[in-house]
Amino acid sequence: MLRFTTAGESHGPALVSILEGMVAGLPLVAADVDAELFRRQQGYGRGRRMKIESDHAEFLSGVRAGETLGSPIAMLIQNSDWKNWQEIMDPAPREGDPARKRAVTRPRPGHADLAGMLKYDRDDARDVLERASARETTARVAAGAVCRRFLREFDITIGSHVVHLGGVDATRPDKMPADLNAAADASPLRTLDAVAEKEMIARIDAAKSEGNTLGGIAEVVCDGVPVGLGSHVSWDRKLDGRLAAALMSIPAVKAVEIGLGVEGARRKGSDVHDEIDPDEGNMKAGRVRRRSNRAGDWRAASPTASSWCFAPL
Amino acid sequence: MLRFTTAGESHGPALVSILEGMVAGLPLVAADVDAELFRRQQGYGRGRRMKIESDHAEFLSGVRAGETLGSPIAMLIQNSDWKNWQEIMDPAPREGDPARKRAVTRPRPGHADLAGMLKYDRDDARDVLERASARETTARVAAGAVCRRFLREFDITIGSHVVHLGGVDATRPDKMPADLNAAADASPLRTLDAVAEKEMIARIDAAKSEGNTLGGIAEVVCDGVPVGLGSHVSWDRKLDGRLAAALMSIPAVKAVEIGLGVEGARRKGSDVHDEIDPDEGNMKAGRVRRRSNRAGDWRAASPTASSWCFAPL
Amino acid sequence: MLRFTTAGESHGPALVSILEGMVAGLPLVAADVDAELFRRQQGYGRGRRMKIESDHAEFLSGVRAGETLGSPIAMLIQNSDWKNWQEIMDPAPREGDPARKRAVTRPRPGHADLAGMLKYDRDDARDVLERASARETTARVAAGAVCRRFLREFDITIGSHVVHLGGVDATRPDKMPADLNAAADASPLRTLDAVAEKEMIARIDAAKSEGNTLGGIAEVVCDGVPVGLGSHVSWDRKLDGRLAAALMSIPAVKAVEIGLGVEGARRKGSDVHDEIDPDEGNMKAGRVRRRSNRAGDWRAASPTASSWCFAPL
Amino acid sequence: MLRFTTAGESHGPALVSILEGMVAGLPLVAADVDAELFRRQQGYGRGRRMKIESDHAEFLSGVRAGETLGSPIAMLIQNSDWKNWQEIMDPAPREGDPARKRAVTRPRPGHADLAGMLKYDRDDARDVLERASARETTARVAAGAVCRRFLREFDITIGSHVVHLGGVDATRPDKMPADLNAAADASPLRTLDAVAEKEMIARIDAAKSEGNTLGGIAEVVCDGVPVGLGSHVSWDRKLDGRLAAALMSIPAVKAVEIGLGVEGARRKGSDVHDEIDPDEGNMKAGRVRRRSNRAGDWRAASPTASSWCFAPL
Repeated sequence: MLRFTTAGESHGPALVSILEGMVAGLPLVAADVDAELFRRQQGYGRGRRMKIESDHAEFLSGVRAGETLGSPIAMLIQNSDWKNWQEIMDPAPREGDPARKRAVTRPRPGHADLAGMLKYDRDDARDVLERASARETTARVAAGAVCRRFLREFDITIGSHVVHLGGVDATRPDKMPADLNAAADASPLRTLDAVAEKEMIARIDAAKSEGNTLGGIAEVVCDGVPVGLGSHVSWDRKLDGRLAAALMSIPAVKAVEIGLGVEGARRKGSDVHDEIDPDEGNMKAGRVRRRSNRAGDWRAASPTASSWCFAPL
Repeated sequence: MLRFTTAGESHGPALVSILEGMVAGLPLVAADVDAELFRRQQGYGRGRRMKIESDHAEFLSGVRAGETLGSPIAMLIQNSDWKNWQEIMDPAPREGDPARKRAVTRPRPGHADLAGMLKYDRDDARDVLERASARETTARVAAGAVCRRFLREFDITIGSHVVHLGGVDATRPDKMPADLNAAADASPLRTLDAVAEKEMIARIDAAKSEGNTLGGIAEVVCDGVPVGLGSHVSWDRKLDGRLAAALMSIPAVKAVEIGLGVEGARRKGSDVHDEIDPDEGNMKAGRVRRRSNRAGDWRAASPTASSWCFAPL
Repeated sequence: MLRFTTAGESHGPALVSILEGMVAGLPLVAADVDAELFRRQQGYGRGRRMKIESDHAEFLSGVRAGETLGSPIAMLIQNSDWKNWQEIMDPAPREGDPARKRAVTRPRPGHADLAGMLKYDRDDARDVLERASARETTARVAAGAVCRRFLREFDITIGSHVVHLGGVDATRPDKMPADLNAAADASPLRTLDAVAEKEMIARIDAAKSEGNTLGGIAEVVCDGVPVGLGSHVSWDRKLDGRLAAALMSIPAVKAVEIGLGVEGARRKGSDVHDEIDPDEGNMKAGRVRRRSNRAGDWRAASPTASSWCFAPL
Repeated sequence: MLRFTTAGESHGPALVSILEGMVAGLPLVAADVDAELFRRQQGYGRGRRMKIESDHAEFLSGVRAGETLGSPIAMLIQNSDWKNWQEIMDPAPREGDPARKRAVTRPRPGHADLAGMLKYDRDDARDVLERASARETTARVAAGAVCRRFLREFDITIGSHVVHLGGVDATRPDKMPADLNAAADASPLRTLDAVAEKEMIARIDAAKSEGNTLGGIAEVVCDGVPVGLGSHVSWDRKLDGRLAAALMSIPAVKAVEIGLGVEGARRKGSDVHDEIDPDEGNMKAGRVRRRSNRAGDWRAASPTASSWCFAPL
């Protein structure tokens, strides 16, 4: 069983990610993680924080001579912005209470500020917003990068691309690129539709100039996944449920769709199922072919720009 | 911490639901559970199974003299169809192996049949489909009914209604009824839009006559929920993520939306947030008022008719 | 991951045990479980309850035609005493409140009565003692019996015998019997020392006549366990810790020792370690031989007679 | 629900401890943790490592201006020895493979070396022993120190003292000192018996000179614990079981006793129970008085010198 825990405030000293339960003997170097942290920081119109940070994961444990040990893998990711925030975010009390002087007393809608202030009885929204921040996904990406390295051993790949942004839908290509992430990363908006991309950029610029933000939808595509991950036997072992929990736990995500998703609810049963290719040889060998893919892959929809990452299952 | 476990095959002797961690002293009688089991079995166009079953929950533990004890609450729900299936579903081996003679060897698309057969190495799809069945939600409804009784102590209500069925959208009333469930239960399709209902019924009849099925979308509305359930501090404590996992673990559900859901991704930030009413008196008292409700409530979309229930958090 | 949940009060309608996560395809019949339930009910000087009960497990789910399905295995064990307790233990409220009339208002020392009454705010100790009862271990034995059946596939056996009772130590034979449980079951006290047994019986008779009870120590011996169960990597994966939790959770158990246990703390390091036989061929093959066994096997000590069973790890 | 995770190899860059689920608003400074880390490093005859390390916990998250935030508390404890081990323990692969050149190929008895090598398929025992080390308890002590700070708010104290070492029993004082830890810390062996202490020291010196080690027993005493921690309702909620798991998960611990422990199994029932003082006023107020304390407090026995710490429940 894989478990992961993240810690860290947005402007605190550092983020920490511990992945527990990984096998021993997996080849793993910091560059495997840093490559994903770099990808997380790209994107047109990302906030200023993204420019300041250039994240690097330092293995504190669980890895030796380029191989995992089976023990918990702790990764430390310094917040480079920390130097500017030491007074306000110092774990220790300070003379003159500088933290309190800069308290954020006006909770923002669309954030956990108010709920967190009431739940944890805080007067300063900063005590909440520092943790309820997109920055926290950095630690998830680090754990996810190790998992991605693990999946590579089984030729399982996970890619994603943006299919909607700010009111503009991207056309899905007839044939998905062999390396989806490489193709998406080549676009500043991670979309495969160059025409839509132009319009998306124009809308981002317009939104920015009016002090607004835009939402978007990313589609995640997995390849090489063996049949039988998750299980039908108990509610909390279902793969769909676990994926939904992982995606919906990302602050900005407000919808998760699998396969056709909402659209599927508007169709007849005959138009949503994926007919099984009854080739017996394939089936016996565990190679399942279906004549369509309406129930697979998934999408997460978010009303604000966000990072996408995956919790290990 | 509440935990629940369900057990039972669709045509086996019985379903079992164990809810662990409930407080002591909660008034609880079997009728509280049976009322929800009855509601689960209603609905226009439900399958034949629904007619055969008339579910009743028997408390085997955890309740005494009409009050919970704090110990695990085990509920037994007999499968009234069991008498017709004893030969095929007998836990014990039988002379002549009647189970094998009636083996289901053709896995159905849109079901867990094939994945389960490969994962668990079963030749008979029945070994899978008996558990990967909508019937399993009966045991969830039983656990959920106890939780609903618990929430009543805090004036927290959870209601739902159908907002889409078979291509027909229902209009949401300007003002939601005080008792949403009572209003929805009055409709054979649990919709609040009488005009849409007629069209939905016509489409169900048409689908039935052509041997097809239809999908639908249910909206769930909670009232009286205190601010601060769940938490922003860790990915697996987020309320949104837990709700999504619970809903998406229902076999037929392929999409979960919270608040505006997918629609939110198509709007500008200024059109998705719920402005906080800055009345200080209210806030200090934990009474939060917002000027809209775009981030709250949630919907689950399913390509086939299904039962809705909730996992305790 | 195996999980198990038990439910049921001592004089309620029934006990329920759900074992979740078992593999599919394991041969399993009710007799496998009943044999262990029978063994649990033996023993010289056991209480009257033991005579009344003759436990039988009914599979409600997870087993079909003598094979596990991979789905949750629910076992129902009727309390045969229930017919005498229906008035007092009825889950439903009754006219005249017969339960309250027979309330147990004097909490007993050495039991959970008082702690439970205060924690759960109960006036009637019966609301606590019905669950905090040795009877609950019946449901554990049922789950353990399925696990034992599973371990048999790997030639892993778990046996036990009584090494101390009421002040009398039993001598451990020079060579443990090939089938430890069969040998121990042949003794009314499950001890391998016939001389000690006589003295133990005399002390039980004497204690009984003075209205007292005696404590005892059982030793558990596992055979065929592969090296590497549990793990050193995290505190909650350690096998010793998991065994200790399972044993100490049995109401009457107040001490758990592994290998030499307490005695080990009185020895020098050179007298507690088990030297590894450095045969390289054996080691490469995972066949580890040690020249002693001071760190293995385990014992649970209890101040009152109790049943021993194991939680699945 | 409190959860904690530790990470870190003995000679790696650092140890990390994450405590998740702590309340917000608890006063907490690094000195609270460092004081416990210092106590852990004391003791007559401790290994050389103890001298080299002078542990300090750095809060990376969860604490701001001397108060907890409710978010995960990550603590970083540098391994001061790391500078001497960079070549051998470097997470990154190095030219010439210096780690492999210094491989530990001879697994030690009494350690996890062999089991770990077989389970995780490692040729170098260092890949195992670095994690299966008493050093790991440092990270537990850090998490425990935060919990201790939390318990102080409720006037709950946990103290310990050594009651046996190397064959020498310490006499327990008639009256335990008000501040048990302060009294025990004043002794180099943490024992309250000055006479026994001299003999213990002599035995340690003798064992050292012959290259041997000694075992010991520590007794843990809690004060101010409210009635009702843990629960009787399910096996994995029992306080005894959770304590046993936490203690037995410490590498060197091979026995856990609660109250009279093993001795209780040798007594009659009338000599093990703690009679309840039937003062009704006290009881209604939740103030329980008993006339003895045979079932409370607990002891952990270890065949080698070790650190004691507690896992949060």
